[in-house]
Amino acid sequence: MRLSDLPTPCLVLDRQVLQRNLARMAHAVEAGGVALRPHMKTAKSMDVLKLAMAAGPGSGPRGITVSTLAEAEYFSGHGAMDMIYAVGITPQKLDQVAKLNAAGADIKVITDDLAMAARIAAHPNPPRTLIEIDCGEHRGGLQAEDTLLLDIAAKLGPALIGVLTHAGHSYAGRSDAAIQEIAEAERATAVHAAERLRASGHEITIVSIGSSPTALHGRSFEGITEIRPGVYMFGDLFQAEIGTHGRNDIAVSALTSVVGTRPKEGKILVDAGSIALSKDRSTGDTANDLGFGLVVDMQGQASLGRSIVVKAYQEHGVVALDPTMPGYQPPIGTKLRVLPNHVCLMAAAHDRYFVVDGNSEDVVAIWPRVGGW
Amino acid sequence: MRLSDLPTPCLVLDRQVLQRNLARMAHAVEAGGVALRPHMKTAKSMDVLKLAMAAGPGSGPRGITVSTLAEAEYFSGHGAMDMIYAVGITPQKLDQVAKLNAAGADIKVITDDLAMAARIAAHPNPPRTLIEIDCGEHRGGLQAEDTLLLDIAAKLGPALIGVLTHAGHSYAGRSDAAIQEIAEAERATAVHAAERLRASGHEITIVSIGSSPTALHGRSFEGITEIRPGVYMFGDLFQAEIGTHGRNDIAVSALTSVVGTRPKEGKILVDAGSIALSKDRSTGDTANDLGFGLVVDMQGQASLGRSIVVKAYQEHGVVALDPTMPGYQPPIGTKLRVLPNHVCLMAAAHDRYFVVDGNSEDVVAIWPRVGGW
Repeated sequence: MRLSDLPTPCLVLDRQVLQRNLARMAHAVEAGGVALRPHMKTAKSMDVLKLAMAAGPGSGPRGITVSTLAEAEYFSGHGAMDMIYAVGITPQKLDQVAKLNAAGADIKVITDDLAMAARIAAHPNPPRTLIEIDCGEHRGGLQAEDTLLLDIAAKLGPALIGVLTHAGHSYAGRSDAAIQEIAEAERATAVHAAERLRASGHEITIVSIGSSPTALHGRSFEGITEIRPGVYMFGDLFQAEIGTHGRNDIAVSALTSVVGTRPKEGKILVDAGSIALSKDRSTGDTANDLGFGLVVDMQGQASLGRSIVVKAYQEHGVVALDPTMPGYQPPIGTKLRVLPNHVCLMAAAHDRYFVVDGNSEDVVAIWPRVGGW
Repeated sequence: MRLSDLPTPCLVLDRQVLQRNLARMAHAVEAGGVALRPHMKTAKSMDVLKLAMAAGPGSGPRGITVSTLAEAEYFSGHGAMDMIYAVGITPQKLDQVAKLNAAGADIKVITDDLAMAARIAAHPNPPRTLIEIDCGEHRGGLQAEDTLLLDIAAKLGPALIGVLTHAGHSYAGRSDAAIQEIAEAERATAVHAAERLRASGHEITIVSIGSSPTALHGRSFEGITEIRPGVYMFGDLFQAEIGTHGRNDIAVSALTSVVGTRPKEGKILVDAGSIALSKDRSTGDTANDLGFGLVVDMQGQASLGRSIVVKAYQEHGVVALDPTMPGYQPPIGTKLRVLPNHVCLMAAAHDRYFVVDGNSEDVVAIWPRVGGW
């Protein structure tokens, strides 16, 4: 099977780029002396996880991070047992986690809530629990200095095994220095929370931080036991703009077909719209707004210059062709690819990857993804 | 099963509201003396289509519209054979359509391209074809006056059966008068194109227009054979803002659980994020920006005032609670619903509907949806 045979829109994964990205992170964690617990919310694929586990130079990830219980069920069903479910646990989900753990999984949960901590402690099969700390993103988590920290720890009792924080605000960094500063705050906050808990007599074995930008920009991981980046596996236009990786390090794109042409306006229509691409506009917050995605050719090469998806309807994308290539007019049915603004959301609409190696048009594998909840 | 038993996030469909919306459109098409060919890209459900077909006072839809070949395969597999695939056809998809038609479907296709018209005419099993006309949206389609219109018709030969246009720019209308004007232009443009073709000797049996706003605002359907609205079945916050329906006419919402609280900031975290809700921000272009969705209680009642999802991460939504209800602090695990900005995109992330009737918490049915491509 070749790319030209595939129905569109669909998701293409370049295994060579993926492996390069995996190796880069593996070297970063080796150099930092910290373990990698990759966040599988981006890839949602056991095949991708297997490659991540094989990536040198260290021993590879021992555990993973998940964002849904559908991922937890899928990965534990495929033998990846050690995981953190990194969204605040609820009473109902606590029961679901306990069931999966009874079946052999080792799902750890997070909370920042005193009543929920009491529910966990009172559960007949309490999962091991990390307290969520806020290191500046102000999404979930306690301040490391919050008096509640010790109250929650006391409620959790032996279920407590660690602390977890996520510097999601690193995405707002626009320079290496800014992201390094956020990375250091992420580290220091988690370590401080862990030290407060230890000083109160709690055994803290996991001190977990991480986002892709801070994982790759952080100068020190002292006191940290693991990092949880996810998007680094695939990369996207937004991460390229903020310097997490280069634009050539984007492993996933949407294969699409030209379904209409508007030569007088320098535009074409493609069959990748707001479902296939998502409506994410994150490059709109950078110096280089790339609309709903940058268009490259079927082989993934940047031969279309600055051709951008400027509008996204449900099943139509409107591409403004690079004005420096006025002669370019692809016929109906021409296949192109769209690089994602935010790969987690583009991938979420698709149920499988069509895998290629570099510029080759041969589809070497089809890898399923787990979706839903 | 009750709403309180459901894992979150998931999609809730209020059958009573749906049936009210279906009846309203059925009366509108009856009054307009035009046939209804509902666009199933919103609902993607045979169960919803069955209700649409049963909605009075007329004989109900005879055919449907689809936006993907996955929908075409699903609906024809369930006996709904008469359909228009309303995205410009490509050579590869022409083969897929011919296969489905050989198996019993009656999928009609659209084009606005001369070379593609030649491909259709030369195909061993050419599907019946409509020429796409642009009535002002400037997405796909020819101008009704374009000389290409007759060239494409000549190429299509006996495959040609009609013209189709879509006033998607009606979504930019902000008053009844503005949308009425767009509706009349949509009608007049389609009729004009049909008349040009008939004057050249072509038999034109389908003159197809429609969007939900123009279907409900149009004053005349003279010369039109069918309309193709879709979002009217479910409604959403955007359509309520532009007056297509009222806010109480929104049939679909995302059920979600509280996963975090930030009482000092008047915020809560819910487990419906940018996948479950989509990143659609269409109310941002109206006078009443509702973020990523308006939060109501589990029964669908507006008891949370103006509580809005102000940020959407992959699996987290940040809700700014209505500042006039400072005492409100739901515990972790509380179930709420989020009304969609754009229901087509919210629904796209989910594989089934949990069906309720009005305020009742009883789940009376689970209806599958067809996704992907």
